[in-house]
Amino acid sequence: MSQSISSNVSRTIQTKLVLPPDTNHIGTIFGGTVLSNIDEIAAISAMKHSKRVVVTASIDRVNFVSSAKVGDILYLEASVFSTGRTSMEVYVKVECENLLKGNRTITTTSILTMVAIDEHGLPVAVPSVIPETEEEIDLHKHAQERRKQRTQGQAFGEGKKQ
Amino acid sequence: MSQSISSNVSRTIQTKLVLPPDTNHIGTIFGGTVLSNIDEIAAISAMKHSKRVVVTASIDRVNFVSSAKVGDILYLEASVFSTGRTSMEVYVKVECENLLKGNRTITTTSILTMVAIDEHGLPVAVPSVIPETEEEIDLHKHAQERRKQRTQGQAFGEGKKQ
Amino acid sequence: MSQSISSNVSRTIQTKLVLPPDTNHIGTIFGGTVLSNIDEIAAISAMKHSKRVVVTASIDRVNFVSSAKVGDILYLEASVFSTGRTSMEVYVKVECENLLKGNRTITTTSILTMVAIDEHGLPVAVPSVIPETEEEIDLHKHAQERRKQRTQGQAFGEGKKQ
Amino acid sequence: MSQSISSNVSRTIQTKLVLPPDTNHIGTIFGGTVLSNIDEIAAISAMKHSKRVVVTASIDRVNFVSSAKVGDILYLEASVFSTGRTSMEVYVKVECENLLKGNRTITTTSILTMVAIDEHGLPVAVPSVIPETEEEIDLHKHAQERRKQRTQGQAFGEGKKQ
Amino acid sequence: MSQSISSNVSRTIQTKLVLPPDTNHIGTIFGGTVLSNIDEIAAISAMKHSKRVVVTASIDRVNFVSSAKVGDILYLEASVFSTGRTSMEVYVKVECENLLKGNRTITTTSILTMVAIDEHGLPVAVPSVIPETEEEIDLHKHAQERRKQRTQGQAFGEGKKQ
Amino acid sequence: MSQSISSNVSRTIQTKLVLPPDTNHIGTIFGGTVLSNIDEIAAISAMKHSKRVVVTASIDRVNFVSSAKVGDILYLEASVFSTGRTSMEVYVKVECENLLKGNRTITTTSILTMVAIDEHGLPVAVPSVIPETEEEIDLHKHAQERRKQRTQGQAFGEGKKQ
Ligand SMILES: CC(C)(COP(=O)(O)OP(=O)(O)OC[C@H]1O[C@@H](n2cnc3c(N)ncnc32)[C@H](O)[C@@H]1OP(=O)(O)O)[C@@H](O)C(=O)NCCC(=O)NCCS
Ligand SMILES: CC(C)(COP(=O)(O)OP(=O)(O)OC[C@H]1O[C@@H](n2cnc3c(N)ncnc32)[C@H](O)[C@@H]1OP(=O)(O)O)[C@@H](O)C(=O)NCCC(=O)NCCS
Ligand SMILES: CC(C)(COP(=O)(O)OP(=O)(O)OC[C@H]1O[C@@H](n2cnc3c(N)ncnc32)[C@H](O)[C@@H]1OP(=O)(O)O)[C@@H](O)C(=O)NCCC(=O)NCCS
Ligand SMILES: CC(C)(COP(=O)(O)OP(=O)(O)OC[C@H]1O[C@@H](n2cnc3c(N)ncnc32)[C@H](O)[C@@H]1OP(=O)(O)O)[C@@H](O)C(=O)NCCC(=O)NCCS
Repeated sequence: MSQSISSNVSRTIQTKLVLPPDTNHIGTIFGGTVLSNIDEIAAISAMKHSKRVVVTASIDRVNFVSSAKVGDILYLEASVFSTGRTSMEVYVKVECENLLKGNRTITTTSILTMVAIDEHGLPVAVPSVIPETEEEIDLHKHAQERRKQRTQGQAFGEGKKQ
Repeated sequence: MSQSISSNVSRTIQTKLVLPPDTNHIGTIFGGTVLSNIDEIAAISAMKHSKRVVVTASIDRVNFVSSAKVGDILYLEASVFSTGRTSMEVYVKVECENLLKGNRTITTTSILTMVAIDEHGLPVAVPSVIPETEEEIDLHKHAQERRKQRTQGQAFGEGKKQ
Repeated sequence: MSQSISSNVSRTIQTKLVLPPDTNHIGTIFGGTVLSNIDEIAAISAMKHSKRVVVTASIDRVNFVSSAKVGDILYLEASVFSTGRTSMEVYVKVECENLLKGNRTITTTSILTMVAIDEHGLPVAVPSVIPETEEEIDLHKHAQERRKQRTQGQAFGEGKKQ
Repeated sequence: MSQSISSNVSRTIQTKLVLPPDTNHIGTIFGGTVLSNIDEIAAISAMKHSKRVVVTASIDRVNFVSSAKVGDILYLEASVFSTGRTSMEVYVKVECENLLKGNRTITTTSILTMVAIDEHGLPVAVPSVIPETEEEIDLHKHAQERRKQRTQGQAFGEGKKQ
Repeated sequence: MSQSISSNVSRTIQTKLVLPPDTNHIGTIFGGTVLSNIDEIAAISAMKHSKRVVVTASIDRVNFVSSAKVGDILYLEASVFSTGRTSMEVYVKVECENLLKGNRTITTTSILTMVAIDEHGLPVAVPSVIPETEEEIDLHKHAQERRKQRTQGQAFGEGKKQ
Repeated sequence: MSQSISSNVSRTIQTKLVLPPDTNHIGTIFGGTVLSNIDEIAAISAMKHSKRVVVTASIDRVNFVSSAKVGDILYLEASVFSTGRTSMEVYVKVECENLLKGNRTITTTSILTMVAIDEHGLPVAVPSVIPETEEEIDLHKHAQERRKQRTQGQAFGEGKKQ
């Protein structure tokens, strides 16, 4: 595919109110709820870029650096910033705001690889991407290193093919 | 805490039927559903080890090496195999079985760090663990390397503290 | 409250993938799912404006002018554009995009009135709003007429107090 | 269709216990949950009248005149009271009962227009209705006025076709 | 408690549309979904009789004599027809209607025992009941025999106290 | 079918954390949630035995001998212990553990009959079973008596065909 698409096309935004079913019995959001939201927005972003159904090939390490509570608001933003032949790297940023205190803090950031698939479930080529924001351009540059690091990481049992 | 606990105490098993709400419109399970199941079983495993409420501090890279479809059965197994002062490393293995074909394949494996918290939400000490299976003993050995690798990984934007 | 707040503060965006549980058995989204999404985003928008818990006082007539299908993407945008003493009018626009065809169409627009409440569940004063977009300024102007029309509407049994 | 059907055929009743997932973090039911329940019962009522799949064309203004809390019981009643060629007007009444106090209050009433569709998703003719209760007969009489008012209402941005 | 309450007070009706998430991947409703609906309506019915929070002490054998499919309508009806000191027997009837064919068939009937509990979670006395319908009067008569049969039933491992 | 299958093949384990949406507003798990979990694990167990889609034909009397609270852990274990031509009897044991107190108690046990169906929804023959544990062998022996008892039970209105 010769065509190149701006990362603005896949940029996607979510705003969510943290509700009781999303939290444990002391009112802290489950890591699994955040991970599920991250995967959902990454899939939408990759679908907007590729105009295809997509599947999640991998999610890089996620650190939850601060927690969210019932009544807080979560902001998620995602965009495709790098592509292979059939795969797309999606950057997802999650922030949390305590409404009354009014301060916004980073909850986590994450990089996912989504693969476009055709009607037979086989990987299919995607357009390349033109990263636009500083963050995307920076991440785009290090795509090779991340790919190498992923291969190394598998030496210590991190979800390697078996 | 001087007391040491066998990894058999925290070993936890789940068996799930993949249902339509877990899947996209072509019948493939969402990565987010699998991630949410992984976090849930890791939390139960860490609660069984620590007798405490726990929060997810991080999840290492997850590769989805094969997919699951509506009607398949997912097997999840988790155990605590390494501990810090307040943190526990949990290994989660996810396998998928197509009932009619009868073959079981690895979907993914993953390592999560869960932190035990007290009634004020502050990290609290956990008992140490005695790994039992070969896999757990092997993972336990490489705990230091994984910790170092995590710090390095953050150089390329993988959810670093900001 | 003398303070005035720009409608940019309450502007809120959602992007949702239409999934099987959101639809009837021929794959068309339920009106109830859209209404529930509209109410959720209106509540978040009003919470961002008022820094308070809010409840829905009313939703004006909603016309569903086109439908959404499984696999489509819904875009919702909400902002507070007019205020009373304790109430806020929120404008919500819902658009739908068929990913493969790539065209975006209006699904519906709606105006909700949200009321800020304090810890005893009683209405509490909110800051006034400065509408920013052309649409918001236009809606702001007709606030009086809508209020009158609402009173008339009740003559024919539309959700009047009984 | 020459056949006429009594409104008793489409009369539908629901009784629901208000549970934590239906409410915000101070225990008040979401407007969106009530709206979703209203749409669901209206759809069932219209399906019983038309023996067809139906879609929601519109919902008239909804005023939430009193709130419901966790542990309360919601009563919903719906019936088709007026028909066009392919559309049906459904009246929905929602009441709430605090079990311990034992008093029942109106939460809201609402009128929805549902359209019957065939297997290609196109509007299809429905039988006419014979309204039975006083309320239905009264609403039936004012069908013309409501239709006119709906057209006017669209002047002030209430979900008009765009 | 000397006061006696008519079974009309606790009579409760539900009408539900069978949706994809309620069914397996060939479109047949899960037994578990029906059981969950039965328990919910029995709890509401017992709460209406006792004006108390209730817990399910037991559910008698349930035979699913016909199945329900996606798009069908379920009718549930429940009433308290017999009481002990703190327990209430609730009869639940579930019928299913295929909208297009228009015929209604019994899906199952069931008898549950609900126990009223006070704020400390302890069983608390309930008013006695006056059964009204023929079915309720008939069931009321055989209350003693059912109680005896329940004791015998436990001989063959049916959920006996252990 | 001449082939016989060990009950170890169908033995299935679930571990669940009791969460707020599973409980009433005083934090006690709903009977309906437990019943729904029981049906799900019985279905998985019967699918593993028969390699077929299965439907629930019946569930024998269930006594809830102790309750589970938010934050507790539920253990479910199921296995096929007896078969007819197309039906399978599944034994399900549910235990509950309070994490902090550390004690495990029986919540309930239950016997379900699942029927294997083919692609036309018709009952289809299943392999016979070789029960392995003492409990399974004991239950297997009394299969005839339970069948007789089921027939008698229907005399007093317990879910009989009507
Ligand atoms: C992702 C998947 C389609 C790749 O299949 P495959 O047979 O390895 O196909 P290919 O070798 O052609 O790889 C396709 C692309 O995926 C990339 N890829 C494969 N595994 C990957 C991984 N673990 N992480 C990142 N990228 C990966 C390849 O690099 C390739 O990218 P490119 O075309 O841009 O060069 C396959 O592993 C799969 O179906 N996994 C399950 C996905 C899923 O269902 N996820 C949801 C939860 S289970
Ligand atoms: C995890 C958390 C409690 C750590 O807080 P902190 O102020 O860094 O506390 P400490 O420095 O005492 O660290 C506590 C333990 O967590 C470990 N830890 C902290 N961040 C970690 C990370 N990203 N990955 C792995 N372990 C981490 C520390 O190494 C320490 O372990 P040890 O006691 O075994 O040596 C805090 O970051 C937090 O609340 N995060 C959000 C957790 C959450 O809510 N997750 C759900 C989704 S948002
Ligand atoms: C409702 C819908 C089918 C009408 O389509 P249309 O092209 O306008 O069709 P028609 O002009 O033949 O109108 C069909 C009927 O709908 C009625 N109708 C159309 N728009 C309406 C509205 N906003 N409010 C009330 N009735 C309306 C017409 O009056 C007509 O009624 P009649 O046959 O009784 O005279 C179409 O707008 C649609 O699909 N909307 C989305 C419905 C949906 O999916 N809702 C769920 C949430 S998006
Ligand atoms: C039901 C429960 C409160 C009974 O407690 P208990 O210590 O046996 O109390 P009591 O002996 O005072 O019995 C209270 C009533 O329950 C009845 N009861 C107890 N077990 C019963 C059973 N398995 N089936 C029917 N009725 C039962 C008793 O007959 C008595 O009725 P009565 O007052 O009308 O004569 C208790 O077993 C319990 O909490 N069970 C769990 C309930 C629950 O949480 N269910 C949800 C899913 S786990």
